[in-house]
Amino acid sequence: MNASTYEPGTLYGIGTGPGDPELMTLKAVRHLRDCPVVAYFTKRGGNGNAFRTASEHIGREQEKLPLVYPVTTEIPHGCPQYLDLIERFFDDSAAEVAGHLECGRSVAVLSEGDPFFYGSFMHVFLRLQGRFPSCVVPGVPAMLAGSALLPRPITMRDDVMTVIPGTLPDGDMLAALKGADAAVIMKVGRNLPRIRQALRALGLEERAWYIERASMAAEKLLPFIEAPEDAAPYFSMVLIPGHGERR
Amino acid sequence: MNASTYEPGTLYGIGTGPGDPELMTLKAVRHLRDCPVVAYFTKRGGNGNAFRTASEHIGREQEKLPLVYPVTTEIPHGCPQYLDLIERFFDDSAAEVAGHLECGRSVAVLSEGDPFFYGSFMHVFLRLQGRFPSCVVPGVPAMLAGSALLPRPITMRDDVMTVIPGTLPDGDMLAALKGADAAVIMKVGRNLPRIRQALRALGLEERAWYIERASMAAEKLLPFIEAPEDAAPYFSMVLIPGHGERR
Repeated sequence: MNASTYEPGTLYGIGTGPGDPELMTLKAVRHLRDCPVVAYFTKRGGNGNAFRTASEHIGREQEKLPLVYPVTTEIPHGCPQYLDLIERFFDDSAAEVAGHLECGRSVAVLSEGDPFFYGSFMHVFLRLQGRFPSCVVPGVPAMLAGSALLPRPITMRDDVMTVIPGTLPDGDMLAALKGADAAVIMKVGRNLPRIRQALRALGLEERAWYIERASMAAEKLLPFIEAPEDAAPYFSMVLIPGHGERR
Repeated sequence: MNASTYEPGTLYGIGTGPGDPELMTLKAVRHLRDCPVVAYFTKRGGNGNAFRTASEHIGREQEKLPLVYPVTTEIPHGCPQYLDLIERFFDDSAAEVAGHLECGRSVAVLSEGDPFFYGSFMHVFLRLQGRFPSCVVPGVPAMLAGSALLPRPITMRDDVMTVIPGTLPDGDMLAALKGADAAVIMKVGRNLPRIRQALRALGLEERAWYIERASMAAEKLLPFIEAPEDAAPYFSMVLIPGHGERR
């Protein structure tokens, strides 16, 4: 068959969920198994969390396409050198994925949690949009694996829930927390001390919970006042359940 | 065996996801199959959406426990008569579930989307908390099945995302929308005209998307400016993707 007669492959964004392999959806498993190429983001020397979560559904015959971050935490995320490196990395990643799609090989790009809810898949997606058929398979986000551990629901009735990246500048973080009934703070890591300051300023410390590695083997739930003093692991979050009032 | 030697059953809150049966997780399917009793909320004369989504995993031998809402939209949700009816209904539902748990029969309570993210399961959970072992199995929320259909991700980089019940009073809805980069408005239904007013007042109409029945057979995605004039179906939402800026 002539190469020009190939149908292009489909770009799949596969949400692998929060980390427990059993929290993958049936649809994620099916599409993952059907794709001849499996792409996944990872730092140097690792396999990436999404790959680990999905590994039992990835066969030997499937081509593995690791997309290796050039940096993770070595350079501050705001500085021009980081932005330049990371944008070029996503350009290169998209080009590698496109190479397979052009030859008619569908690619499953694994995404921790949900593909369109923060994360790296979307940077490949936006670069290839319109050129190839695509399908986003939603996944269970880490925040809901976290809230499943709480003694009360994260949102009820007329609660407004706000999701806040822990990377926000102090003023923005305070403003976002002020307007929320329920709140989720993601990307905690080294931002933990700043998050503590914000919660303390608003009198929210007592209502907040600290969660590490929700749904994974080393999962940990603590009242926020018992959280570590300094940096937290990458897979940590802070949750504040709403009051669940009617308005 | 004497009844007093029974271990109590476990209360499972099973997130069945947004409606596509394939968007159930492997864990939801396993626990659902293992429970001798399957409880589900439904309006009169129906089987409920969560039950429909999960039906292929429910066997004949499993006892079905429908929890039938005494009212749905016949009485305004704010009025005392509604509140009284609905609280008594949750009391009765919890008692029925507890009856099985006391006899050592685990109960799977089906929940559309995620059990702790709005919804009815939590009202049973909060009434039985501490009396029985429990396990919440998180699910894919409808909002992420909706955002999977968009031409761009719902959140990127430093976006703050706010989830707003469409039932909020106008002033509260405006305030919540103002602080958001990305927004999800749930429980749209008959609140659609009020939501349109709020979006128009803030100049957000052009950025917004209207979605009906995400992940179901009759799923529909429209730019918000092409949404129906008046009421929308129960399973509809409005999504505003963030700009994805770094701060």
